Amino acid sequence: MRISERIETAITHAIAGGQASAAPAKLSAALGYAVTPGGARIRPTILTSVAMACGDPHPKLTDAAGAALELLHSASLVHDDLPCFDDAELRRGKPALHRAFSEPIAVLTGDSLIIMAFQILARAAQHNPTAAIALIDVLSTRSGMPYGICAGQGWESEEVIDLSAYHQSKTGALFIAATQMGALCAGQDAEPWTELGARIGEAFQVADDLRDALCDEDTLGKPAGQDDLHGRPNAVAQLGVRGAVARFDDILAGAISSIPACPGEAALAQMVRAYADRLVPAIAREKPTVPGE
Amino acid sequence: MRISERIETAITHAIAGGQASAAPAKLSAALGYAVTPGGARIRPTILTSVAMACGDPHPKLTDAAGAALELLHSASLVHDDLPCFDDAELRRGKPALHRAFSEPIAVLTGDSLIIMAFQILARAAQHNPTAAIALIDVLSTRSGMPYGICAGQGWESEEVIDLSAYHQSKTGALFIAATQMGALCAGQDAEPWTELGARIGEAFQVADDLRDALCDEDTLGKPAGQDDLHGRPNAVAQLGVRGAVARFDDILAGAISSIPACPGEAALAQMVRAYADRLVPAIAREKPTVPGE
Repeated sequence: MRISERIETAITHAIAGGQASAAPAKLSAALGYAVTPGGARIRPTILTSVAMACGDPHPKLTDAAGAALELLHSASLVHDDLPCFDDAELRRGKPALHRAFSEPIAVLTGDSLIIMAFQILARAAQHNPTAAIALIDVLSTRSGMPYGICAGQGWESEEVIDLSAYHQSKTGALFIAATQMGALCAGQDAEPWTELGARIGEAFQVADDLRDALCDEDTLGKPAGQDDLHGRPNAVAQLGVRGAVARFDDILAGAISSIPACPGEAALAQMVRAYADRLVPAIAREKPTVPGE
Repeated sequence: MRISERIETAITHAIAGGQASAAPAKLSAALGYAVTPGGARIRPTILTSVAMACGDPHPKLTDAAGAALELLHSASLVHDDLPCFDDAELRRGKPALHRAFSEPIAVLTGDSLIIMAFQILARAAQHNPTAAIALIDVLSTRSGMPYGICAGQGWESEEVIDLSAYHQSKTGALFIAATQMGALCAGQDAEPWTELGARIGEAFQVADDLRDALCDEDTLGKPAGQDDLHGRPNAVAQLGVRGAVARFDDILAGAISSIPACPGEAALAQMVRAYADRLVPAIAREKPTVPGE
């Protein structure tokens, strides 16, 4: 089965486990709405690729871990879109969940997806109990307080923002979770895989800034130009388009050279490079046509 | 150490683990705000009492489980108090968290507490890995979808409410978690302890209805008369005060007779009875003074 099929199957299976005819219908429907359509599924793809590069001895544990990571990420999107944060109109190319359902359902959907993420890891524990516990520890560390994505979002309520801590926790944390969890699924130590996750997270942040600045809403599936609009610090404002692309290429080279020795090292490097190419909009690499530049 | 001290110590320790000087300050402070002052801590008290009745072989695991359960409960209170649900003014005798901090911080506090609950169970796993995994499974089942407290709150968004499913999930679920988790901490099967939790949950619901109808805001630490105000189904409206008290006593007797055989069975029965007495306001048991009644 291709990686993308494995991931979609695992997510579909996880969501079905949270639904029941005897459960409230709107919240049941909202769980599925929150995680589809999938898009790149970049975090579970990295997780699965790392596990496969290390031999993937327990594929069902890997699939559960990938689904758990994607559910946690989806939960954060649903809550970040709420009126008290971004009040987003669009997400995944359709109305944001609180607009399609309601604000109460959006709060509960996020809560339910977070809980479900830990549940599916606990229920996959029979494949390797020690790894399952480590997976729950890593996922909670990289999603909660003080250093996970909750902390990252929490920085936006501070008058003085520690920019490095903000980016590391808001964007980097779940990429670090992806590489560490992939290694754990294969029975490896998590620590040597931290740098790869951190660097992919940094590269993703720069690519996101480029897409926000250069793409339109139809391409993104969500509003464009948000960094400029909200005056958020971003790589394009700091370095210009060409400077941001150069920075992206630098980070990517560092990411690839940080990959620990493992049986599938070369294939993993190729996957990271191929994925990265798709992240940067083609227009960012075109020769400038502005006269005099 | 007394049960209440064990619980407060474990909660304080858990919250400290989510705070750091390099983390966003408001969200750090809000975590502690959400769980204090403690009040009865009824769910972890039941959990700890069940574990002790079964010998409590791993007290650190029990303390972690009690704290995890209380953090999950506290998270649900913070989210249920949000403007899109009850828009509560008061909680634990002080301004509700979204009023003391902000709505974004309240959303993130709930999310962080949910995540922290699973984290502390994973980190207590060295005492008994099999039990820790079962604890995570039970806590997630009783808090998420389709049958946990998220489902309970989700019923309030439905036009037609399944009242039995609503009460079982909204109130009963975390009491079932309490008795099941207490048994698991002692290396026992969870299943024989389900009925005790379910019946305590039912009794608690009736007592809560009585307090809501008969007590004032100062006594409750939150607004009174909310069931009447929101037209919510409740035992006092259905049965009257005396009928509700009789129903409470019936449920309590059933709860006590459901306690599985265990070394501390008698002490546990006494604890349940003593706690229950404190739940029902004294005025509910006074002879009526209304002429002709």
